Amino acid sequence: MPIDATVFRSRRDRAAQRARSRDLAALLVTPGSDLAYLTGHRIHESERLTCLVLTADGSATLVVPELEAPRARAAAPGLELRLWSETEDPIAAAAALVPRGRAIAVGERMWASFLLRLQATLPDRTFCPAAPVVAPLRAIKDASELAALRAVAQSADRAYTRVRELVFEGRTEREVGADIAALLGEEGHDEVTFTIVGSGPNGASPHHNAGERRIARGDAIVLDFGGTMAWYCSDITRTVHVGPPSAETVRVHDAVRKAQEAGYKAAREGVAAQDVDAAARTVIDEAGYGTYFIHRLGHGIGLDGHEDPYLVRGNSEPLVPGMAFSIEPGIYLPGKFGVRIEDIAVLNDKGVAEPLNEVDRSLAVVS
Amino acid sequence: MPIDATVFRSRRDRAAQRARSRDLAALLVTPGSDLAYLTGHRIHESERLTCLVLTADGSATLVVPELEAPRARAAAPGLELRLWSETEDPIAAAAALVPRGRAIAVGERMWASFLLRLQATLPDRTFCPAAPVVAPLRAIKDASELAALRAVAQSADRAYTRVRELVFEGRTEREVGADIAALLGEEGHDEVTFTIVGSGPNGASPHHNAGERRIARGDAIVLDFGGTMAWYCSDITRTVHVGPPSAETVRVHDAVRKAQEAGYKAAREGVAAQDVDAAARTVIDEAGYGTYFIHRLGHGIGLDGHEDPYLVRGNSEPLVPGMAFSIEPGIYLPGKFGVRIEDIAVLNDKGVAEPLNEVDRSLAVVS
Repeated sequence: MPIDATVFRSRRDRAAQRARSRDLAALLVTPGSDLAYLTGHRIHESERLTCLVLTADGSATLVVPELEAPRARAAAPGLELRLWSETEDPIAAAAALVPRGRAIAVGERMWASFLLRLQATLPDRTFCPAAPVVAPLRAIKDASELAALRAVAQSADRAYTRVRELVFEGRTEREVGADIAALLGEEGHDEVTFTIVGSGPNGASPHHNAGERRIARGDAIVLDFGGTMAWYCSDITRTVHVGPPSAETVRVHDAVRKAQEAGYKAAREGVAAQDVDAAARTVIDEAGYGTYFIHRLGHGIGLDGHEDPYLVRGNSEPLVPGMAFSIEPGIYLPGKFGVRIEDIAVLNDKGVAEPLNEVDRSLAVVS
Repeated sequence: MPIDATVFRSRRDRAAQRARSRDLAALLVTPGSDLAYLTGHRIHESERLTCLVLTADGSATLVVPELEAPRARAAAPGLELRLWSETEDPIAAAAALVPRGRAIAVGERMWASFLLRLQATLPDRTFCPAAPVVAPLRAIKDASELAALRAVAQSADRAYTRVRELVFEGRTEREVGADIAALLGEEGHDEVTFTIVGSGPNGASPHHNAGERRIARGDAIVLDFGGTMAWYCSDITRTVHVGPPSAETVRVHDAVRKAQEAGYKAAREGVAAQDVDAAARTVIDEAGYGTYFIHRLGHGIGLDGHEDPYLVRGNSEPLVPGMAFSIEPGIYLPGKFGVRIEDIAVLNDKGVAEPLNEVDRSLAVVS
């Protein structure tokens, strides 16, 4: 995260401007990536309310539990704080900071318990999602964010290069997953968020975790892992094979590879997100595996692992330089195996998608 | 987590019964501890809606993204699933399962974005928090839950015994925090959630993380750490001192120790949660440090690190056998140091609080 307070002030100013143009009174944002983006303060949501009240005229106050005040001050110097003690009602404190009249936007991931209490405290007001205000700002990364995404992607690439050298045969998915997590740490990740090791038939469940299945010769293995470095997320998938692959595995992998290439080619400035999905999907359809590509093509990435823009049918949002997103086609043959290839790509200044993950995408044969 | 499906069915039946008695139509519960408690399915909340619809007549359906279906089936066998594909509206699918008429309760931590969409889809319905239905069930632990809490507490105790042997002087808080995390892992934790190392003046910020401050001789250090084992949480605090402590540090530690003992004595069946807080607070008040005990005395613990019951002024809820909660008085002298002692305690069958953390509470002198 950039620590220059002016960066956060400028982000808040742009958010406030968008709030004004939508005739909102204020944005209320609880801990999570929106709060980190707007203030630099990154903590976990908890039952003790922390809430940024950003009014449409640009004034910002962080409602914060007294015992969190030192951390909030250190993380967001210069931000106005409204401390509350353990026996005070923080919802009333936040509500009192909201200007009268217009609608109130709340952060996507605010807990329902807080939203219900805010609605009860301000019964005459309309509440709406803050996403249309904040998400478009977050979707377009500035230079320091792109540098952070590149650095964490390169760390994941280095980890994968070492993952290929692991022994797979005879070990459980869980053991391999633990090794992957350790390698991500050694290569610079601050935190490992997930390590999917989907071997053999388990690979046909796209979000299978690493389990107790023992990996055998002849298995295709979907490896999908990621975490954070300086708060920004990585997310990479490669499919490897224990020993020489069958003709069918090679054919499926080839279709996925070509679908990803079609996604890269389609992802250009001004193209609708759903058209990138369609371009990759067409390749898999034509290879005869269309019914086995059961998820969207990709998702944006930044402070959250999944954020705008989503490359999915129904999303007509045009791509813009500075957007970062995954391109991750997959084919999942129930009871047999799965194949997925995923990079993080960025739409560069020329309006063209370039990969942040550059490590070899071929069906690596492992031992 | 118990894996016997009848346990989860029985929990859902009790929740449905409570929903009926409150004239609710249904509970809607998204991923998190409530969902794990009611179904055994434990995943992270994501932008793809997973939602248990538990109607007041006891029928349960899990609305789940198609690509998460294999995991949901494995985690919650026998639970009815309503799959949705990537281009369907899952909110409409969930709403269609809710019986007509009465109010709808939503889980505490459902994302605001989902709640707002549910409210827009069902504009004539009243929404209220599910906490009054689910939290009282979760607050009273069954035998398997108590065993899990005891096991993870003992793991934390073993880790602390080894933490005391670490070298502190000359190392950063962050380095010590990493060692603590590693020891928790070695002693059986599946996951480490937090490691607070508040040395010298940093100890006066109750929720200070482990930072770059280098620990020096003469520092008091608040060590507060925890994580999970088999999904259940640990949370323990001990205060140590690098070299011989000053008379003031000893005096403050002594007051905190006595306050904790007063908390243990007060925590009995039928006593209001706030009266336990008051009993401990009185000891610190009488020692002259009342203004420096700036947080509640404790919080419940189970699948979440913080849950009902909260030992805080304003909570008149009576304690009941089977409740598990922290007892953690502290004194924080700004610019100087902090002291906190925290155990997890359980109200046993005799209605008396007994500690799950039994490791030495004295002001340990470390090197």
